Amino acid sequence: MSPPREDAVLSTMQDVPLLISRILTHGSSIHGTSQVITWTGEAEPQRRSFAEIGARAAQLANALRDELGVRGDDRVATLMWNNAEHVEAYFAIPSMGAVLHTLNLRLPPEQLVWIVNHAADKAVIVNGSLLPLLAPLLDKFPTLEHIVVAGSGDRSVLDGAHAQVHEYEELIAGRPTTYDWPELDERQAAAMCYTSGTTGDPKGVVYSHRSIYLHSMQVNMTQSMGLTDQDTSLVVVPQFHVNAWGLPHATFMTGVNLLMPDRFLQPGPLAEMIESEKPTHAAAVPTIWQGLLAELTAKPRDVSSLTQVTIGGSACPPSLMEAFDKLGMRVCHAWGMTETSPLGTVARPPAHAVGTDEEFAYRLTQGRFPAGVEARLSGPGGERLPWDGESAGELEVRGPWIAGAYYNGPDGEPLRPADKFSEDGWLKTGDVGTISPDGFLTLTDRAKDVIKSGGEWISSVDLENALMSHPDVAEAAVVAVPDEKWGERPLATVVLKEGSTADFESLRAFLASDVCKIAKWQLPERWTIIEAVPKTSVGKFDKKVLRRRYAEGELDVTKL
Amino acid sequence: MSPPREDAVLSTMQDVPLLISRILTHGSSIHGTSQVITWTGEAEPQRRSFAEIGARAAQLANALRDELGVRGDDRVATLMWNNAEHVEAYFAIPSMGAVLHTLNLRLPPEQLVWIVNHAADKAVIVNGSLLPLLAPLLDKFPTLEHIVVAGSGDRSVLDGAHAQVHEYEELIAGRPTTYDWPELDERQAAAMCYTSGTTGDPKGVVYSHRSIYLHSMQVNMTQSMGLTDQDTSLVVVPQFHVNAWGLPHATFMTGVNLLMPDRFLQPGPLAEMIESEKPTHAAAVPTIWQGLLAELTAKPRDVSSLTQVTIGGSACPPSLMEAFDKLGMRVCHAWGMTETSPLGTVARPPAHAVGTDEEFAYRLTQGRFPAGVEARLSGPGGERLPWDGESAGELEVRGPWIAGAYYNGPDGEPLRPADKFSEDGWLKTGDVGTISPDGFLTLTDRAKDVIKSGGEWISSVDLENALMSHPDVAEAAVVAVPDEKWGERPLATVVLKEGSTADFESLRAFLASDVCKIAKWQLPERWTIIEAVPKTSVGKFDKKVLRRRYAEGELDVTKL
Repeated sequence: MSPPREDAVLSTMQDVPLLISRILTHGSSIHGTSQVITWTGEAEPQRRSFAEIGARAAQLANALRDELGVRGDDRVATLMWNNAEHVEAYFAIPSMGAVLHTLNLRLPPEQLVWIVNHAADKAVIVNGSLLPLLAPLLDKFPTLEHIVVAGSGDRSVLDGAHAQVHEYEELIAGRPTTYDWPELDERQAAAMCYTSGTTGDPKGVVYSHRSIYLHSMQVNMTQSMGLTDQDTSLVVVPQFHVNAWGLPHATFMTGVNLLMPDRFLQPGPLAEMIESEKPTHAAAVPTIWQGLLAELTAKPRDVSSLTQVTIGGSACPPSLMEAFDKLGMRVCHAWGMTETSPLGTVARPPAHAVGTDEEFAYRLTQGRFPAGVEARLSGPGGERLPWDGESAGELEVRGPWIAGAYYNGPDGEPLRPADKFSEDGWLKTGDVGTISPDGFLTLTDRAKDVIKSGGEWISSVDLENALMSHPDVAEAAVVAVPDEKWGERPLATVVLKEGSTADFESLRAFLASDVCKIAKWQLPERWTIIEAVPKTSVGKFDKKVLRRRYAEGELDVTKL
Repeated sequence: MSPPREDAVLSTMQDVPLLISRILTHGSSIHGTSQVITWTGEAEPQRRSFAEIGARAAQLANALRDELGVRGDDRVATLMWNNAEHVEAYFAIPSMGAVLHTLNLRLPPEQLVWIVNHAADKAVIVNGSLLPLLAPLLDKFPTLEHIVVAGSGDRSVLDGAHAQVHEYEELIAGRPTTYDWPELDERQAAAMCYTSGTTGDPKGVVYSHRSIYLHSMQVNMTQSMGLTDQDTSLVVVPQFHVNAWGLPHATFMTGVNLLMPDRFLQPGPLAEMIESEKPTHAAAVPTIWQGLLAELTAKPRDVSSLTQVTIGGSACPPSLMEAFDKLGMRVCHAWGMTETSPLGTVARPPAHAVGTDEEFAYRLTQGRFPAGVEARLSGPGGERLPWDGESAGELEVRGPWIAGAYYNGPDGEPLRPADKFSEDGWLKTGDVGTISPDGFLTLTDRAKDVIKSGGEWISSVDLENALMSHPDVAEAAVVAVPDEKWGERPLATVVLKEGSTADFESLRAFLASDVCKIAKWQLPERWTIIEAVPKTSVGKFDKKVLRRRYAEGELDVTKL
């Protein structure tokens, strides 16, 4: 952006930067009596008011500066569950001008090591219960000078660590409960989060104060999560997972109470905390809800307080949504990714669909783009596709809380890989889908999973769903394989049910039939029977294994 | 603000400016089927979809550039009612980089002349029905090159005008329905609005794209107006009155339908449009609601759709709030001013008060500060006062949608009068009141109306309300008069009811009694009987007349 012309009419507005310290100050004063409730596994949870969080965040910032020597944009990592101390770190670290680096405790150790070193973290705040994860890696963290331990857990595993060890409560005790938060540039780094790509090194997304502030406002808008201070939000989605979908920041703007499960993420304790603390809202990925549903079926509890459930991370199966509806918990789909802060869409049905047959279909989409997120679809040849609800393309997005690069490439410059960022700076999400004329996104495939055949795309997910609706098919995965004439063509890998006698010709005819209505040019020629579809650690189809097995000639393929 | 250090961790977020063109593009695509409904006084109102508004705004921008030669930051004024064409101007003018200047059609002609010349408006878009107001002044507008007339009204009054006259519909007809909106600096001027101060020249507030964008997000937050696309908002507050409280911009972010009354602001037509168009929300000053209430009492209509009413501009009398509650229209107080964009507070009761006896008291306050508006109270000596709900001080505010100056002083530089802006840049609102610990503002006086006695403040409004609760008093106004010992002391000016025999001693004793509980040092010594309290054109007590009459020895004052 160029500065305004010298002779231009100047705005007479105050130039007040959008800073996380302002969110903290607002929440801990205006909403000082709202609470962060942390589950402890004991009879009584820990309760801390927003005013106390504000005072303790200031104490933490004073300690980090005066005792640990945190300065400027030093990175301070957290390896923590969702709890009050993690909320304190969320506010203290960016507000003092340093950079919060949330570590994903589910990453393989070698990725954790890579990430901590890439960010050059100077200190880490760690929950005592997670020390067994951290301790064995300490030798590999040359930049790490300080370890601050919060909560219960055996400290002896840290004996002999080269970094200085501090007790969280002792460290902050007695320090001033205010801090003269600096007036930072709102575009300065506030927090960072690495994506755990399945290929290549993890990539760091660095959020600014501005992006977090704007994203928080968006979360509080009526068409987003839209909570008020009458709500209590059960934040199951981890604080190390894209800022817990923005909830800790957003709730401090509006006084929404936070219910934090700490390490008690099993269905039993979750059901228990819902029954006793009566949250009105909860946010988590589908697998958590799948487990909770089973728990509630096996052992019913009063969960009537919980009327609004935000589901993201992956698509919510219709059956799960219906089951939750029956329990009075209304599921609201949302879509986003680490690079989008994360809220990119929220599936609140449009006014005309509310109360009609269309409503459920709208709720099953990924949702509608809010003001602040611009979207476009890019076809196989890079052409722009219309928002007609039918043309499928790769989703590209732009906006003030969308990443335009990754942190520090090998040359120290921001990294802008061509498969992730367009030449004009939009984020290529890697997600393929359609957009309706009224801006609802329906995702069908990951871009790497679509089949690029003769300049057109074939959805592997559509073919899989069609195949799996056949009574003889247990599972099916469709992957792209090279084809001399078309570039790529689909390979259907099928797991038949026991005793099935279906052959490939009949399956192919089924796809073409009026039941499935797959276009002729999209029908697979290549077919193979497999024993099971390989899966990733989180249960998704692992298609790169299938592609490799095909490439290495391990599959017995029939060509029709 | 200084730029970030060169070696600092850089945010990897996209640098997307917050522009009004983005709000327009969002609203006219994602919410393209939402409507701007303009009352016409005919059987059927004019209905225009957001998509049409978007196309016509682009046509208008093309016309302004290609036909009228609007360039850079040229000022384009509007002298218009609330209607679809005014909404088009709201978006077209700032989005193309020019500056929208809304003219208050209720200003005295000499102020209109002063303002148009101070802003150096190049063009004006005017409703045909307002030409009788504009035409006689045209000779006094040397900078005005173009007049664009929209809607019905006799054009012949423009005969002989030096400026070129255009018909709105002819001007935009056939032009491209898209416009390549420029990527502006978000701090660039977008719109301006002059305050009609009772003393001195009017002062121009210049909103930036950034301030309007952020204010719009705030309006859409749950604790503000919090509307969704299931709502229709009846915008009675004029578009020339601080951007109609931000509603035209905010609704394009979320798809809220706009119901625009055009020139039909009388209680009858308002009741009629509520009954037939069924808005769910309405926004206006108390006098409008007072009139509507009388109308509905005289001639009941089905107004059951209207459940949420935002009242600002001045305090809503408790009796009016109760009357509206009974009609099922829940009143929500808001406070703001031209310098605050305007939303500064909104009176949504805090969670703990909802459903309790406290709720109504919270609703009678001016409301709670949202994230983005920082507040402090300044005492008589400039000292900071606590938020204890008792200490009364002048309200000062800071934030990204709060003015920090006025447009162009005599030297062409921004104007920062010391009585309006503190040395550290906060806006001195001129309003005196208290703030509760949970951030609710209660206004009691205008700063110019409080009595500064011996370094303490005495509320003139408190004394007036106490006096007027006496059975013999018809009206009472209290003003500050100079006092050698105390600096200032209160003068009580009283209008007695017919046949009353009350004397000053007994009135003074009444103030000091357990009924009124006025502190002894606040009791007036100076008393006078007047025939009526002088009033301003909008019916407020005109205290400067009383002060002048006292200074000129016109009042017969008794000193007790």
